[in-house]
Amino acid sequence: VADALDQLKSRFTELRQLFGVSSLLTWDQRTIMPPAGVTHRGQQLALLQRIGHDKLTDPAIGRLLEEVAPVAESLDPDSDDAGFLRLARRMYEKAVQVPTDLRAEMALASAEASPVWVKAKETSDFPLFLEPLERNVELRHRYVECFGPQDEPYDVLLDDFEPEMKTAEVSRIFDEIKAELVPLIAELRDRDIDASFLSGSFPVDRQVALGQEVTDLFGHRPDAWRIDPTEHPFASGAGIDDIRITTHYYADSLESLFSTMHEYGHGLYEHQIPRRFAHLPIGSGASLALHESQSRMWENLVGRSVPFWRYFYPRVQEVFPEQLRGVELDRFYAAINRVRPSLIRIRADEVTYGMHVILRFEIEQDIVNGRVELRDLPRVWAEKMDAYLGIDVPDDANGVLQDMHWASGLIGYFSTYLLGTVMSVQIWEKAVEDVPDLDERMEGGDFATLREWLGDNVHAHGRKFTPQETLRRATGSTIDAKPYLAYLKRKYGAPVAA
Amino acid sequence: VADALDQLKSRFTELRQLFGVSSLLTWDQRTIMPPAGVTHRGQQLALLQRIGHDKLTDPAIGRLLEEVAPVAESLDPDSDDAGFLRLARRMYEKAVQVPTDLRAEMALASAEASPVWVKAKETSDFPLFLEPLERNVELRHRYVECFGPQDEPYDVLLDDFEPEMKTAEVSRIFDEIKAELVPLIAELRDRDIDASFLSGSFPVDRQVALGQEVTDLFGHRPDAWRIDPTEHPFASGAGIDDIRITTHYYADSLESLFSTMHEYGHGLYEHQIPRRFAHLPIGSGASLALHESQSRMWENLVGRSVPFWRYFYPRVQEVFPEQLRGVELDRFYAAINRVRPSLIRIRADEVTYGMHVILRFEIEQDIVNGRVELRDLPRVWAEKMDAYLGIDVPDDANGVLQDMHWASGLIGYFSTYLLGTVMSVQIWEKAVEDVPDLDERMEGGDFATLREWLGDNVHAHGRKFTPQETLRRATGSTIDAKPYLAYLKRKYGAPVAA
Repeated sequence: VADALDQLKSRFTELRQLFGVSSLLTWDQRTIMPPAGVTHRGQQLALLQRIGHDKLTDPAIGRLLEEVAPVAESLDPDSDDAGFLRLARRMYEKAVQVPTDLRAEMALASAEASPVWVKAKETSDFPLFLEPLERNVELRHRYVECFGPQDEPYDVLLDDFEPEMKTAEVSRIFDEIKAELVPLIAELRDRDIDASFLSGSFPVDRQVALGQEVTDLFGHRPDAWRIDPTEHPFASGAGIDDIRITTHYYADSLESLFSTMHEYGHGLYEHQIPRRFAHLPIGSGASLALHESQSRMWENLVGRSVPFWRYFYPRVQEVFPEQLRGVELDRFYAAINRVRPSLIRIRADEVTYGMHVILRFEIEQDIVNGRVELRDLPRVWAEKMDAYLGIDVPDDANGVLQDMHWASGLIGYFSTYLLGTVMSVQIWEKAVEDVPDLDERMEGGDFATLREWLGDNVHAHGRKFTPQETLRRATGSTIDAKPYLAYLKRKYGAPVAA
Repeated sequence: VADALDQLKSRFTELRQLFGVSSLLTWDQRTIMPPAGVTHRGQQLALLQRIGHDKLTDPAIGRLLEEVAPVAESLDPDSDDAGFLRLARRMYEKAVQVPTDLRAEMALASAEASPVWVKAKETSDFPLFLEPLERNVELRHRYVECFGPQDEPYDVLLDDFEPEMKTAEVSRIFDEIKAELVPLIAELRDRDIDASFLSGSFPVDRQVALGQEVTDLFGHRPDAWRIDPTEHPFASGAGIDDIRITTHYYADSLESLFSTMHEYGHGLYEHQIPRRFAHLPIGSGASLALHESQSRMWENLVGRSVPFWRYFYPRVQEVFPEQLRGVELDRFYAAINRVRPSLIRIRADEVTYGMHVILRFEIEQDIVNGRVELRDLPRVWAEKMDAYLGIDVPDDANGVLQDMHWASGLIGYFSTYLLGTVMSVQIWEKAVEDVPDLDERMEGGDFATLREWLGDNVHAHGRKFTPQETLRRATGSTIDAKPYLAYLKRKYGAPVAA
């Protein structure tokens, strides 16, 4: 049995390594690859996916899992081996449900839809995107069917992004949030806050140096990180010692700084996975939502906080004196926290952000349950934007076509952005409970305390437990929107001042 | 049978794609990877090698090859399919000789030897490198044994780098070259040529721009290329539309310009492989020597020629006026072609270069045939450097430890550098025969003619034929040192002037 366990580990180590290779290839494609290389890259990634799927669904894995089953039950459930075997079984059992041909069709449909989406977005022409979208949706229905009859088909899709989370649970949480956010936004939207100095001239070379400086300040092993420019920022990497975050520099705004802090949070999560199981599939973040809890925490709970800016604002003023010399901290802080409904999710402020996600989650429900015709999506989108954020959608590029997710077949993904944001506040409050002087430490430039607390309390678990169990171990509670809503009202309900 | 051929192609397409993935990972490692990522990368590359080896030695490939054998014989031997089947059979038959375990041991020994070599080179301490070198040599003996009794064991090693080339043939060619080069070097070495202006201040940013300019001038599809800095320059890529060349910029010399032209030659060869078979293993250069014929041609026959510099020198003067303003073309041309025995192969001039290679080839013979104790290599090296180039070797770092090849287990590789150089002149003379005004065209800035001639006459064959057959199709002759020797004597025997 010990031998069977070793064999399983060896096979799943290969899967983890293949994932690292694919991540690197995708990173390369999205940062520095010569554009014409896209054809090779698509084929290479598809091949790696096929190889991985074949390895994961090898009947030998099923036999080995049976062989170790009696022992698995006797293991300490907190042990690395127990965590590994839970995840291995879960991965295997999900993978064998889906025929290889369907996987290949899904991959091909995504690959074909993406360039059509790019073109449709460029020309703001939703009808152009309709056919590939229909194809992706149809394939998701076939995918769901692989798992047998479902009370809630969307559960199957959601589970791929947020393991064991249920649609009903997300709906409950999102309804609770919506009920509070809509009136809060209405109250805050017309506050007169000057943010004019956040537009202007922010030379890119100085932004690059500043992004480096802020990630150095937050902390990481410098021989194991890169920061590179890209079109749509993301974090990636080939393993805990090869972390790559990306950002997009706009010469007329400071946006890259917040984007860098966001991606730092993702990068740090993977970077601080314990070395002893980093080579196994449990050696990564527990879920997309938990990942987002880390990125949103560094971007918002640190990166838009008073203590951080008390420490760091003089430095930013020094780097961009033309823009910020005469701007006091209070005004700067108010500006970076201004609430203003806007069209684009990834540029939304902390308060309106949630409504962008809820809108997408609701539309996905209607799509999967056949309650909306796909050709009507622009209209549905505009109605919800008006109802939730009170703004008009001028065109599809700034509406239903803004995100790449549906083109890539990622239906069921969006909710994790808000679930993670909710969790980020729960985790934050536990950190503050454990380290009562966390604010003072940050104000003094100490971010190691928070980084290490996250390492010990969140990152240490890797993917050994379900996301909710991971959160419970970190905070004592599963997901709960109340701390998040209280935080928003506390921070934004009162007049803002640093 | 048509189906068997398709199946074979599909399997070998996967092998070609896996090779592209490994190339990209190696490129990344040698250019931009965070240093700590080396552990992940070694494991990832080893896994890809194992997967590739398993795929190549799958008994199904043997059966498919048998199935298509009758048809293979009836194919036009010049056809793509015939070329593909010849290569596929050769790859399969070689791969199945070698146990997977031995392959893994060889890969591991190379991986372990490389950092020891780096350290030994840094501290110029050959004894430190002795043990891993012994291990690599011992594993090569075991490798050779896999192929049964051999009259000439070195043939087996050579064949991996230069298919179907024999040790005796290389010895014959190298003896012919040595007999002419040693006296030619003695004659040229003391010529008084001023090259002082080639040392000084060549700001790196301007070198970067100039390297880009010269590769643009030579020509390629710009959306399919990158040039990046690295420690030891090389050319690589993930496919014909994703070509990556690298160079090293020294702030005090123009060396990067010649290195860039060299790597351009390698890159162009892969870039101009016909698209119709680029996805198969025949879709790459025919051998290391033929590859080197392309790089040495662009570096030397173009890049150190009068016509090129008549066209390009004014531009280089313009870019580096501080260094070159007062230096006329004649003096510049003489300086970049100065013959001067030196310690380091990769910095050697066109004339002395050959002796560096011959020395290594001779030492490798002695190693493989057990005629030298490995611990005596520094002494043997010094003796040959004295005999062939008349210079003293001050330390191991500038002697036997200078190249990474033996640390990487690449025994049998070196001769291809000189074989390729010899071929470069044969190919060049055929190009001039076909395009009599080639010099005038280059002098007028037209490099497309040469590029296209190479595409039609060399690159078009990919790896469909043996290296010698490829050369014969391009030039009418197999390898012949006479044109090379005549070229050197013609160019360097007379006083040099542009």
